[in-house]
Amino acid sequence: MAMVCLLDFEAYAEKYLPKMAWDFFAAGADECSTRDENILAYKRIRFRPRMLRDVSMLDTRTKILGTEISFPVGIAPTGFHQLAWPDGEKSTARAAKAMGTCYIASTYSTCSLEEIAAAAPGGFRWFQLYIHRNRAVSKQLVQQAEALGFQGLVLTADLPYTGKRRNDVRNGFQLPPHMKLKNLEGAFEGNDQSEYGLPPNSLDPSVTWDDIYWLRSLTHLPIVIKGILTKEDAELAVRHGVQGIIVSNHGGRQLDGAPATIDALVEVVEAVRGRVEVYLDGGIRKGSDVLKALALGAKCVFIGRPALWGLAYKGEEGLQDVLRILHDEFRLSMALAGCASISEIGQDLVQFSKL
Amino acid sequence: MAMVCLLDFEAYAEKYLPKMAWDFFAAGADECSTRDENILAYKRIRFRPRMLRDVSMLDTRTKILGTEISFPVGIAPTGFHQLAWPDGEKSTARAAKAMGTCYIASTYSTCSLEEIAAAAPGGFRWFQLYIHRNRAVSKQLVQQAEALGFQGLVLTADLPYTGKRRNDVRNGFQLPPHMKLKNLEGAFEGNDQSEYGLPPNSLDPSVTWDDIYWLRSLTHLPIVIKGILTKEDAELAVRHGVQGIIVSNHGGRQLDGAPATIDALVEVVEAVRGRVEVYLDGGIRKGSDVLKALALGAKCVFIGRPALWGLAYKGEEGLQDVLRILHDEFRLSMALAGCASISEIGQDLVQFSKL
Amino acid sequence: MAMVCLLDFEAYAEKYLPKMAWDFFAAGADECSTRDENILAYKRIRFRPRMLRDVSMLDTRTKILGTEISFPVGIAPTGFHQLAWPDGEKSTARAAKAMGTCYIASTYSTCSLEEIAAAAPGGFRWFQLYIHRNRAVSKQLVQQAEALGFQGLVLTADLPYTGKRRNDVRNGFQLPPHMKLKNLEGAFEGNDQSEYGLPPNSLDPSVTWDDIYWLRSLTHLPIVIKGILTKEDAELAVRHGVQGIIVSNHGGRQLDGAPATIDALVEVVEAVRGRVEVYLDGGIRKGSDVLKALALGAKCVFIGRPALWGLAYKGEEGLQDVLRILHDEFRLSMALAGCASISEIGQDLVQFSKL
Amino acid sequence: MAMVCLLDFEAYAEKYLPKMAWDFFAAGADECSTRDENILAYKRIRFRPRMLRDVSMLDTRTKILGTEISFPVGIAPTGFHQLAWPDGEKSTARAAKAMGTCYIASTYSTCSLEEIAAAAPGGFRWFQLYIHRNRAVSKQLVQQAEALGFQGLVLTADLPYTGKRRNDVRNGFQLPPHMKLKNLEGAFEGNDQSEYGLPPNSLDPSVTWDDIYWLRSLTHLPIVIKGILTKEDAELAVRHGVQGIIVSNHGGRQLDGAPATIDALVEVVEAVRGRVEVYLDGGIRKGSDVLKALALGAKCVFIGRPALWGLAYKGEEGLQDVLRILHDEFRLSMALAGCASISEIGQDLVQFSKL
Repeated sequence: MAMVCLLDFEAYAEKYLPKMAWDFFAAGADECSTRDENILAYKRIRFRPRMLRDVSMLDTRTKILGTEISFPVGIAPTGFHQLAWPDGEKSTARAAKAMGTCYIASTYSTCSLEEIAAAAPGGFRWFQLYIHRNRAVSKQLVQQAEALGFQGLVLTADLPYTGKRRNDVRNGFQLPPHMKLKNLEGAFEGNDQSEYGLPPNSLDPSVTWDDIYWLRSLTHLPIVIKGILTKEDAELAVRHGVQGIIVSNHGGRQLDGAPATIDALVEVVEAVRGRVEVYLDGGIRKGSDVLKALALGAKCVFIGRPALWGLAYKGEEGLQDVLRILHDEFRLSMALAGCASISEIGQDLVQFSKL
Repeated sequence: MAMVCLLDFEAYAEKYLPKMAWDFFAAGADECSTRDENILAYKRIRFRPRMLRDVSMLDTRTKILGTEISFPVGIAPTGFHQLAWPDGEKSTARAAKAMGTCYIASTYSTCSLEEIAAAAPGGFRWFQLYIHRNRAVSKQLVQQAEALGFQGLVLTADLPYTGKRRNDVRNGFQLPPHMKLKNLEGAFEGNDQSEYGLPPNSLDPSVTWDDIYWLRSLTHLPIVIKGILTKEDAELAVRHGVQGIIVSNHGGRQLDGAPATIDALVEVVEAVRGRVEVYLDGGIRKGSDVLKALALGAKCVFIGRPALWGLAYKGEEGLQDVLRILHDEFRLSMALAGCASISEIGQDLVQFSKL
Repeated sequence: MAMVCLLDFEAYAEKYLPKMAWDFFAAGADECSTRDENILAYKRIRFRPRMLRDVSMLDTRTKILGTEISFPVGIAPTGFHQLAWPDGEKSTARAAKAMGTCYIASTYSTCSLEEIAAAAPGGFRWFQLYIHRNRAVSKQLVQQAEALGFQGLVLTADLPYTGKRRNDVRNGFQLPPHMKLKNLEGAFEGNDQSEYGLPPNSLDPSVTWDDIYWLRSLTHLPIVIKGILTKEDAELAVRHGVQGIIVSNHGGRQLDGAPATIDALVEVVEAVRGRVEVYLDGGIRKGSDVLKALALGAKCVFIGRPALWGLAYKGEEGLQDVLRILHDEFRLSMALAGCASISEIGQDLVQFSKL
Repeated sequence: MAMVCLLDFEAYAEKYLPKMAWDFFAAGADECSTRDENILAYKRIRFRPRMLRDVSMLDTRTKILGTEISFPVGIAPTGFHQLAWPDGEKSTARAAKAMGTCYIASTYSTCSLEEIAAAAPGGFRWFQLYIHRNRAVSKQLVQQAEALGFQGLVLTADLPYTGKRRNDVRNGFQLPPHMKLKNLEGAFEGNDQSEYGLPPNSLDPSVTWDDIYWLRSLTHLPIVIKGILTKEDAELAVRHGVQGIIVSNHGGRQLDGAPATIDALVEVVEAVRGRVEVYLDGGIRKGSDVLKALALGAKCVFIGRPALWGLAYKGEEGLQDVLRILHDEFRLSMALAGCASISEIGQDLVQFSKL
């Protein structure tokens, strides 16, 4: 089976992963309309490609929060990588480093932050945080991440409770007994791990914007907020001093009916007016999607499920394949659109289709 | 078979109900385009969810016409519940009471109003009225309902004649001989019950707005008008002194080509300008649909077919399951959209998709 | 098989007609997109139905060019009725008369005008005319129609040449040898009847607006022009003194890509500003379609293929069934929309869907 | 199998060509959305046909760059015609000449320019050019084409690199060993012909608008630029002195997500304001498509894949069949739209559908 595009990796993962794991990774909330819209929305955006520009030298490098990456695609935070590949997040960390890009490690990793850091020393990584009712747990994770060289803190804002994913309910989704949420081992009393490996109600749904100040007090790391979909929240994020915003609907796994991220990006970018960096995740399946997101103002995008498909295919090597294909496709799309470098990608490169 | 969402109950009902009963409940007029639009229209509405609001305490309670309900979903008036479950409307009344919400009992019930009232004493109920040519019949029903503790009168305005439901014609739909329209027993002469259990032409198609005054003269109950789809009729309803409006197209069973209720809601709410309460039925299939309707100005929604599916599944218990799922989904949607209580649900929470 | 709606007659005709006849009747030009749009366009129009109007007495009668018909649906001119039923246009004439409506007999009838007139004496009929290169033929037909009591002349404007209907080409469509274009027998020299029963190039593609004056000089009958789709041509038609306009795209059989007639109706009605009557054919499949067309300004609609399906089902009786169903559905739609008579049907009854 | 419309030729080619050849001809970039949009976009354009115009004499002739062609459809440059028919481009040249239209011979022909010229002496031909890193190759081709009587030079601007066509990658597309890029034999060192018959990186991606001046210095032939999709590039093309613009997205084979050419045509025509001729290729499948393109301002259109299907069917004869069908359909569409000659085709003949 030739692995030509990301959909080949998706087909592989669907075929070879255990059904419960595949369903968990593929899941969207309710009817999955937001999950599917994340992809469909790209098809409604048309390029306005420019011709006869010198595209003999193509430079895909960019910087996020001051650190250079080889191309504007990082790894979004997703949980439970051991469900996809035995080495789990260690493989992810190695692949991201090898490809010169950023990996956002999830709180819900099946490897510990130490293991991740040790697997790919010097790799460019951010740490994704959920705030738990037991704030001591969260505080410790933040400080551990900073000590281990993680260079940014990503606060997920869209999961005060877990979305309703019908297949997970039908399957009675459980982590296999030999997998642990390594970063949270011993953090909670009792053995009830019925909700995605944690006791129910461990997350704190009372978190508000003021908790950004609390986070700020814990760490010198830049804070990025993930899950913003409106101009109002984008303005609040800027005012509360974050360094970056990830436009995200959690892969369509939280509130079904939320807009596609590429659609929401427009209003967030407009509200932010360049004061902080704006990123996006959700629906990226080929290099031209990346180009569209950048044209609409994203500084970088992050991939979630495609990274898991890469892991499911061949672990570290498979994820590198996924990233390499995206890199190649993105570079080719840039060239065919007449852009030799990231700075030449502007808003006049795209238009929304009337359809 | 796990009952995870309302569609599971629909599948169950389709599988286990007699074809004639299923077809009757499922029927829409003509090509069923309005019936189907009721559902599709929700998919064109996108949320604008807000993040980092304290949603640790969620309150789904609201009031309709001054009476508190546990969440803004009631039971719409539908006929012939014994077609779905032997205990018929008695089960419906018990389930609604158990779940703390409002049940609008239909004129076309297969249990009498006394039986309904006795099945769930103290339950919050309204009575739905058709006006018959024989006005004495209607008058008696109104006064009986008031005497039995029903707290509101719902006048159905969109059925001067019955819509054309092709499958009912093909099936030669008839109530089984052991079922009766208990509230109308003896009301009409002769035995011809060829039109949905009644003699043809028993309904009065000459009813006009002035009959609201006649109804008002019969009862102290608040009057709610059901079947309004335009701003013009909404204005007339307010001027004629009703206390509430149910935006409804009769589940798409009357005039095929009428708009989806969620689409019509916008113009009705705008015309009413808060002078009376506005409700909606039609197309509610999950908690987020309820949230969309409330964001667009509905005070409460009512479910028709899903209630019948619940009855078909397990009677009173099945209907409670349906209501509980909707309640849970609605509460979760509120939380994920950043609303801790009904009063925080506003119009800026949604936008109509360009598609 | 219960005949509940017009689609049942379509299914019957498709099943029982010879393939070549079915294909001929069903044919659209090229990709049939206009043929299909004629139907789809109705689905994009929504009613704004009004409630609580006295609809106890429903009057569907209207007048076209001064003559009363029982409801605003006539029989559009279509050719070769013997392909559908042995008695051909004689059956059509009888059914139209029995149902109290207008029948536009085609030049391409397989019965002669005399036979048609004799089959249903006193019936309300118009005669549809193509102008042939041999003007004497056309002149004689016009004068014969007038003499036989036809009350209007319908000039088809959209067939300077016959559209390309792929299946007719594939089938090598030919009239069976025992059928003749009775009105044109002996009109043309030679035996080549390769193009729909006529010699190729018998039609005159040089006809222009000035030929209206020529027609006017031949007859006292009112002239209706059929095939108008633009405001510019509507204005020209009025200026050239026609009494009526049929908005038509020839059932999608001529220029594929022409607009649906219900869409074109809007611009024609606006241009005409009530100076002449405007009718429509194409895509009428149920009573609510008629109501939509009238709300948008049509005085009457005409059915083409559904009439042929009725003939194919049971000749005169089958066509009466079709008309009766349409009449019943139209009357019911009127009532459910709050209109007791034709004069109450106005433009505010409909709106174009955003979809 | 009757060959009634172009889709019949497509079906034939898909059935009888070797899979690798069919896939190569059919290929679009990435998800083929632009390839498919090229066709779908025509379905969103509606005619506004005019009636009762004298269309007895139909004249489809037009001129491009001063040379008359029998109707406004030429042969777009496509490569590797021997994959479709043994005589390759020689057959193409003969068919184009026989039908009185223009053939744009590709740099990537499997016959040499001499062979093409000799196959159909006196035929109206343009030569399509890619600029290679080895400019001497390109220079020689230009001068050879001019010497051989080619009357125009078409510079392809949208292929600095080859687009990603998934099936070609899966198939490991290679020219069969007995086919050669005859115009480039000996032009490049080494035997690596892994990229569509050429060594990788033989094309020059550093070409800019200034190279138009270089081309101009090589030849007296008029220069047409192919691959323009925006008003900005159209303006640049005019300013750099080209004589014509072909609005093209390379059949959807280069940047997936580029607009349908019929959509892009509008903005290019508007920008050009008649200063140079504008043509179009992509998605032409029937005569009415040609009419739509001309109504929107194209002077002529070119067909790519349909020409190859014609070759695959019966070589020169099959391509003539394709052209004859298009000619007949175009002429009929003109007549049915009320246009007797090309000059009568104007922008008010079409409108974009709201859908």
